[in-house]
Order: sequence, then structure tokens, then C-alpha cells
Amino acid sequence: MEKFEVNILGCGSALPTMRHLSTCQVVNIREKLFMIDCGEGAQLQLRRSKLKFSRLNHIFISHLHGDHCYGLMGLISTFGLLGRTAKLHIYSPAGLEELLKPQLDFFCNKLTYEVVFHSFQTSSPEQIFEDKSLTITTIPLRHRIPTAGFLFAEKQRPNHLIKDMIEFYKVPIVQLNDIKLGADFVTADGVVIPNNRLTFPSTPARKYAYCSDTLYKENNIPQIKGVNLLFHEATFLESERARAKETNHSTAIDAARIAAKAEVGELLIGHFSARYEDETPFLEEATPVFPNTILANEGLCIEVR
Amino acid sequence: MEKFEVNILGCGSALPTMRHLSTCQVVNIREKLFMIDCGEGAQLQLRRSKLKFSRLNHIFISHLHGDHCYGLMGLISTFGLLGRTAKLHIYSPAGLEELLKPQLDFFCNKLTYEVVFHSFQTSSPEQIFEDKSLTITTIPLRHRIPTAGFLFAEKQRPNHLIKDMIEFYKVPIVQLNDIKLGADFVTADGVVIPNNRLTFPSTPARKYAYCSDTLYKENNIPQIKGVNLLFHEATFLESERARAKETNHSTAIDAARIAAKAEVGELLIGHFSARYEDETPFLEEATPVFPNTILANEGLCIEVR
Repeated sequence: MEKFEVNILGCGSALPTMRHLSTCQVVNIREKLFMIDCGEGAQLQLRRSKLKFSRLNHIFISHLHGDHCYGLMGLISTFGLLGRTAKLHIYSPAGLEELLKPQLDFFCNKLTYEVVFHSFQTSSPEQIFEDKSLTITTIPLRHRIPTAGFLFAEKQRPNHLIKDMIEFYKVPIVQLNDIKLGADFVTADGVVIPNNRLTFPSTPARKYAYCSDTLYKENNIPQIKGVNLLFHEATFLESERARAKETNHSTAIDAARIAAKAEVGELLIGHFSARYEDETPFLEEATPVFPNTILANEGLCIEVR
Repeated sequence: MEKFEVNILGCGSALPTMRHLSTCQVVNIREKLFMIDCGEGAQLQLRRSKLKFSRLNHIFISHLHGDHCYGLMGLISTFGLLGRTAKLHIYSPAGLEELLKPQLDFFCNKLTYEVVFHSFQTSSPEQIFEDKSLTITTIPLRHRIPTAGFLFAEKQRPNHLIKDMIEFYKVPIVQLNDIKLGADFVTADGVVIPNNRLTFPSTPARKYAYCSDTLYKENNIPQIKGVNLLFHEATFLESERARAKETNHSTAIDAARIAAKAEVGELLIGHFSARYEDETPFLEEATPVFPNTILANEGLCIEVR
């Protein structure tokens, strides 16, 4: 199976602590790296993760709160010191370029590469990235400021040919591509050989959805339905539900309810408030609602499967 | 002896590594904290040091390179989240306020306290802070951009009265202050009692000098003459002298020469380039020139004595 992993570099909330750093993740799809959010210290966490700096060309910022983007300047500077030449693309809600530009011009005026800013709206899903193996689409979230999550969707790969059968039926080379894509084969005698005798399916395309920061929001369920892995923020426990509502955050049970209703494969929760010394209660509250729940933690690398 | 300590929160150079973070120190004088430089991750290092956030009201930035100030936004935000009300004073060469203002207005628009910016010139020494126990004066340095170090000088405290002698000579209370400050006492009979029979000297005032980042610069020697502790940058070893000159940095031997010529008590070296995996050679090069040399390291707390 091709690599599709999520690396947690930081899963705390606004106040970084000795237990959890500010939000940062790296999605590794076949050794192409995509960073999601970039809290203070992201560059050091990236170094710690042993992921290759040169493989990272795209950074996605969910919203313009400091704990999700204070690490950008350090990361950009370090890439410059390392002599990077490839463009670095940063996707975010509108406003980030204006905020960083004065510092970029001042601190990074001799940058060896270009930083390209892309802004997206946060009111409806928008495909903001595509390459031959993947699309990335925004997920509108409900937070105190414009915020979007991200849906990473592998493209379905063509079926695999069953070589023996292809030879047996003497399928002409020119037809192989169609057959990979699902066509049946008709022999010279007019006999139809169904596609499933000629091919076997490739690995089903996988999906990873990232939803942080957000209030409980059922509208997104159709978009994230059946994803293999859902990261959903769980800033608070149930005892702080009022505080969660007030600050536009979710509880562990909120996250689990979304996971259950969206029938996802696994739920990964994080963005834990600094007030909690231990995250076991998050798991205890979430699992009765959605058993397949995992706690995020710095250094965790989880396969999307 | 009253507390006068230097805490190393970061002693790497431009590229933070797993071994060394960007520059940051905290000078603790009688539980009043003064931060010098504020590289990325400073707030977490401050937390790690167990120094009290509420005791820190003054931050001194030597120069406007990112590795000396990228930690400011995170620190300022965190102070806000913790409900700080006391003003936070930031001293730096001109330009920092303009660089941070857009981000402060955007990310910290509900800050519970005031950030006050003070700028200083870097061409001649300037006293930029004074309270009843201390003065802080800039030390002009020679780097690629305007840069200053800082001289922390305790004020000399009055002599201590020898109670038995004060009682024996029946010194009137009204004269005690003058005697603490060095006056002799004249008895009713006209006999002069010399001050050194009535008092013993208080601890000699101590000095800490911080010089980073800088090329080897002898002009500063008179200003830092005889300080108890000198922090001097030593970015490179002697084998990289050409690189040191090119980037306006010092070698370990440069730092040791300054320490020797200035006849300081102890030399603390840091700002190590990321290229070195081990700092032992820094010590090996510095100590023949100035034996009393110490390697900086994250978590080191060194008494000024």
C-alpha cells in the first residue's frame, strides 16, 4: 500500500505547554509532504520527525490565530538558510500575506526561493490543490474567525491487470488502458469477457479529513462521510461544554458524535486545552460514542487505512 | 548574597537544531527577570525554566535578526492568554515596533495589557534602564545590521552597620544613613571614629555583559572591563575564521581574547553554529587564551559572582 500517513507535530491549543505544542501536522503521501497549520516551533518538530524538509512544498493554514501560524516565519527563514530553491506554497484564509509580508521583506530579503500565497474563502468547500494522486478540498468550519478544515482525498488508481488472463485472451496492447479503467473485453469471436476476469481492483482510495478549530457542526457530515481517518479537535471535556460553546470549540463527545454520524474509520482527537494534565478522560468520554478513537500526541505517526 | 543569575534558554545561532535553540537568556536579579533576545520557542523555554512569567517585565532585543526575535509574538500572546495586566517593555534597535504592530493588532487585539516599545541607537553606549538596584546600558557591537549588547550593572549597596559599635558610640539615628554611605562619626568629645570601625562593606556590586552578535571588537573593552561574567558569542571555531569575518561573527578565540583583555571574571560562550555537533573544541580553543571559560547550554543557570 502506498504511503499515506499523518504525523502529529503539535496537538495543543492556544497555550503551548510542556506536554503539547501548538497545532502542526504533516501529511505524508508517497513521500510528498503537506503541512497543516504551523504553530510556533513547527520547524523544530519537523526536524525531530526526521521528515525531509525538501519534500515539503505546500502548507495549509486553517485560520489566522497565532497558535496555528506563528511558526511560519521561523520555518520560512530556515528553509532559506538551507538554500531551498523550490517554491513554497502557503494556502490560508485571506489576510496572511499582508500579515507576513512586512516581516518577510525585512527578515528574509535575501530568500533563495519564492513564497507563494494562496487564499481561499471559508463558506463552501473549494478544491485548492490537485496533482496526479491527490486532491485537497477545504471543509468550512465554524470558529470565531474564518476557518476551514482540509479533506485529503487520494485519487482512485486504475485496476491492476491480471497478466495471465490478458495473455490467455490475447488482449491487444492498445486496449489495456481502457481495461484498467473498467472496460470489458470482446474477443474476435464476439465473446464478452467481463472486466473482473481481467483485472483486480487497486487499493481503494483513502481519505483524511482535518477539522480544527470548530464548534460542533453537522453540516460537514456529508463532505467527510466515510473518510478513513478524521482528525477532529476536542479542546474540552464535557464539564467545560459552556466554555467550548463560548470559544467556538468542541468537546471530546462532539468530536465522537461527528465521527459516528459521518461513519468514519478512525477518529483522532487533539487540540487539547492546556488546563488538562492528562488526556485519558478525553478517550473515556469519546469512546462510548465512537469506539475507534485515538488521542493525538506529539511524535505520533498514524497510517490512513 | 542577593540573587544575580543568568539563565540560558537558547544558545544556538540562526538555525535552531535539536541541540540548541535560538538565542534567549533571562537575567534574574533578586527575582526581577530581564529577558535578552527572544528566539522562536522562548515562551516554552521560559516555562521549562520554571521562572515566573509574572516577574518578567522587560525584554531586550540585541538586533533585528529573526533568530533573536521570532519568539516575541508567541510570548506576547501567551502573556495575554494568562491574563497579564502589567506593561511589558521591549527595548530594541529602531524598527521592531513597525514589524510587530500589524501582527499585534491582528492576533492580539484583545490583549489585557500594554506592550511598550523603546528603541535605542547602537553607535554609543546608552543607559536604557534603571531602578533602585540596577542599570542596563547598551554596548555597541559590530554586526551586519545595527546591534547592541547589554551591560547589567548592580548598584553598589550602602555599607552594613556594625550594631555593637553603633550602640557603643551611641550614634544618633539621624546620622545612620550618612554612616552607611561612608561618613565618619564625631563623638560629643570631638573624637573622630573612622567609618571602617562602624561599618563593614556590602557585597561589591556585580556586572554582567552580553555581547552577541558581533565581530571581534576591541573598542568595547573599556566598557566591559572587569565584569564578573561576560557572555560573548562564539559562532565559529578557528577553522571557520573566514566565514566568521564574512558574516560578522566571532570565533571562540575572539571571545577569549576579549575576555582576557577586559580581565573579566568568567567567560560564557554561545551562539554556536548549527554545523557543530559537539562544542568541546570551542572550549579547547578558548581556554588557552582565557582559562575561565564556560560553554553555554540550554537550561544552564549561572551565578554572577
